[in-house]
Amino acid sequence: MASEKTVVAVTCTAPVNIAVIKYWGKRDEDLVLPINSSLSVTLHQDQLRTTTTAAISKDFTEDRIWLNGLEEDVGQPRLQACLREIRRLARKRRSAGDEDPVALGLSYKVHIASVNNFPTAAGLASSAAGYACLAYTLARVYGVESDLSEVARRGSGSACRSLYGGFVEWQMGERADGKDSIARQVAPESHWPELRVLILVVSAEKKPMGSTTGMRTSVETSPLLRFRAESVVPARMAEMTRCVQERDFPGFAQLTMKDSNQFHATCLDTFPPISYLSDTSWRIVHLVHRFNAHHRQTQVAYTFDAGPNAVVFALHDTVPEFVAAVRHCFPPESNGDKFLKGLPVPPVPLSDELKAALDVDPTPGGIKYIIATQVGPGPQILEDPRAHLLGPDGLPKPAA
Amino acid sequence: MASEKTVVAVTCTAPVNIAVIKYWGKRDEDLVLPINSSLSVTLHQDQLRTTTTAAISKDFTEDRIWLNGLEEDVGQPRLQACLREIRRLARKRRSAGDEDPVALGLSYKVHIASVNNFPTAAGLASSAAGYACLAYTLARVYGVESDLSEVARRGSGSACRSLYGGFVEWQMGERADGKDSIARQVAPESHWPELRVLILVVSAEKKPMGSTTGMRTSVETSPLLRFRAESVVPARMAEMTRCVQERDFPGFAQLTMKDSNQFHATCLDTFPPISYLSDTSWRIVHLVHRFNAHHRQTQVAYTFDAGPNAVVFALHDTVPEFVAAVRHCFPPESNGDKFLKGLPVPPVPLSDELKAALDVDPTPGGIKYIIATQVGPGPQILEDPRAHLLGPDGLPKPAA
Repeated sequence: MASEKTVVAVTCTAPVNIAVIKYWGKRDEDLVLPINSSLSVTLHQDQLRTTTTAAISKDFTEDRIWLNGLEEDVGQPRLQACLREIRRLARKRRSAGDEDPVALGLSYKVHIASVNNFPTAAGLASSAAGYACLAYTLARVYGVESDLSEVARRGSGSACRSLYGGFVEWQMGERADGKDSIARQVAPESHWPELRVLILVVSAEKKPMGSTTGMRTSVETSPLLRFRAESVVPARMAEMTRCVQERDFPGFAQLTMKDSNQFHATCLDTFPPISYLSDTSWRIVHLVHRFNAHHRQTQVAYTFDAGPNAVVFALHDTVPEFVAAVRHCFPPESNGDKFLKGLPVPPVPLSDELKAALDVDPTPGGIKYIIATQVGPGPQILEDPRAHLLGPDGLPKPAA
Repeated sequence: MASEKTVVAVTCTAPVNIAVIKYWGKRDEDLVLPINSSLSVTLHQDQLRTTTTAAISKDFTEDRIWLNGLEEDVGQPRLQACLREIRRLARKRRSAGDEDPVALGLSYKVHIASVNNFPTAAGLASSAAGYACLAYTLARVYGVESDLSEVARRGSGSACRSLYGGFVEWQMGERADGKDSIARQVAPESHWPELRVLILVVSAEKKPMGSTTGMRTSVETSPLLRFRAESVVPARMAEMTRCVQERDFPGFAQLTMKDSNQFHATCLDTFPPISYLSDTSWRIVHLVHRFNAHHRQTQVAYTFDAGPNAVVFALHDTVPEFVAAVRHCFPPESNGDKFLKGLPVPPVPLSDELKAALDVDPTPGGIKYIIATQVGPGPQILEDPRAHLLGPDGLPKPAA
């Protein structure tokens, strides 16, 4: 009983983010410094989130971690880098004279438990939410209040963008030590309330190449990637920031699509080439362009990360018709009632004109399901101790 | 009878060529001037050729053309440009003082008939062979002996490369009038006798976007295409020329694959994006890379033009095992006996090690058939009058 009381536990949640100006390629593998800046939209945690509990105790004999209920190797280099970095920040703070009692636990071992409320198989960069949540939770448990970009970045580059809500840029920085390679909020989650996000989860046959290996090969072999990073992205960052600030949907949408395409172009220019887009991904691309052409206006945009799933942006009013178009092109197979998850989307009929304009042979089952969500806030601390994933003994609670 | 004798007919054949440094994008749409130089391999006419008969007579009242037996509109702009250009050259020659009696027919109308010995549906750039054959045949009938690059180019840019056998470069040129944008032989067809070419004809669902429209959109919208043309291709042209001259197969093969990939990358960077590679094309890409990885040596190379079909290069000794690997990954559906066309390829067993290394779920019917061929000569004149596609009346002979 005495030992149980010495356990200090903190539980936080963190969001997934989707880049609209893509990060692809490191200039420093060890410090996780990118070859270009990037900009992302933070998705709402009502639909997609990671929850992490970190607990410290003088009685713990070693650092331990459980992911989705299974214990994993805590010696993994990226995880070790995060732990080292957060402890360095905590030490720095303590030596600066603060007397936060939590910081006294600096020498204690930590137990970490983390769960996603979405399947890893959905191919949604879970590592970004995961490492952002880890950094945010460890900071609370060790009493660190400084910028967490570096802690999160060491785990997974794009994780630093999940430290904020709304629209977030990751400035590449110039310094060799990476101190200026930090995430910064461009606009808060309340800035563009009409914006909606649909995740189209594609039935994938194979596991695609991991992004760490992929971007390393791209940096080493693609002549186009260097040009993109140096000569294309800087102007696109400025333009995307303007589109967000002015809530210019057609501008935002077109640049989002162009930048997704250019990222995948550099993957194709990699040797051996990398392909993350499947035939179904391409069907979604064509669907979006035809939908927009029919309306003579860019009402919908796609973006693809290192996998075949599409993330689609649209304004609130456009969503019902676009979802109907997706249902038309990709008739749900068995799970018609579970095809649409997340925010409710009212069913609407599809006009014959639009059906004709889409001009597709339907691909039944090509899309497994859609998650409808919106822009959301950054990491949150959960004050209710019932939210802890670790019990008073510092071990994972049995799943409810 | 009197009028029949006044018909002068010439029949020629011309080859298909496959670019290993790709042409994509015009700097002058009207003159068909490219934004970069390109280099191609001329394929043997024993397997793939266009045959064209051109006949002139003072009795013909209008220019007429038949393609694969069907009369087509002779007013088509590219065809008109070729006719105008060849007549200009003929006039120039005659005014220079030559007294070739054939040139006297300059004012006569022409009848043209052209056939391919391969299906247009095979997606093999038939326009290159077609316009090269047209230029070559018209030159003979009008007595033109000067460089035909411009005549062929006006029909279809890459057609100028089909004017020569072996390995051919199309120098982009610098002049605004295009006079220095000409094709030139880099090495004759006898230069690399071990080189073999396999055309893997993929079962395509849809007709891809035409290359004229595609390259125009790319020039207008792809930031990567301009960089490729200006900063990547010049060094690649020099390197490819060296590989051909030294018969350096691994160097030739790797650069061929990289340049195909980069061309398709610029298509993806186009807006809206263009995709010529299907899932089957990608399966071929992976097959080639795994085949090479298994042998720890680049023994096979792919290249893709504006469609899903692969053209594969390999040395003579490698062909049987690679064809066996293709059969393993793409089991022929109904036409097992007609799966392999062209040059004979002896069947060989596939080792269990290679089967394991390929690591594929077979895709039955993904490849319709293979055409095995080799490097071949340039256009040929057929002296035998029985080869004429037009009868003594200047109309197509009934198909035999």
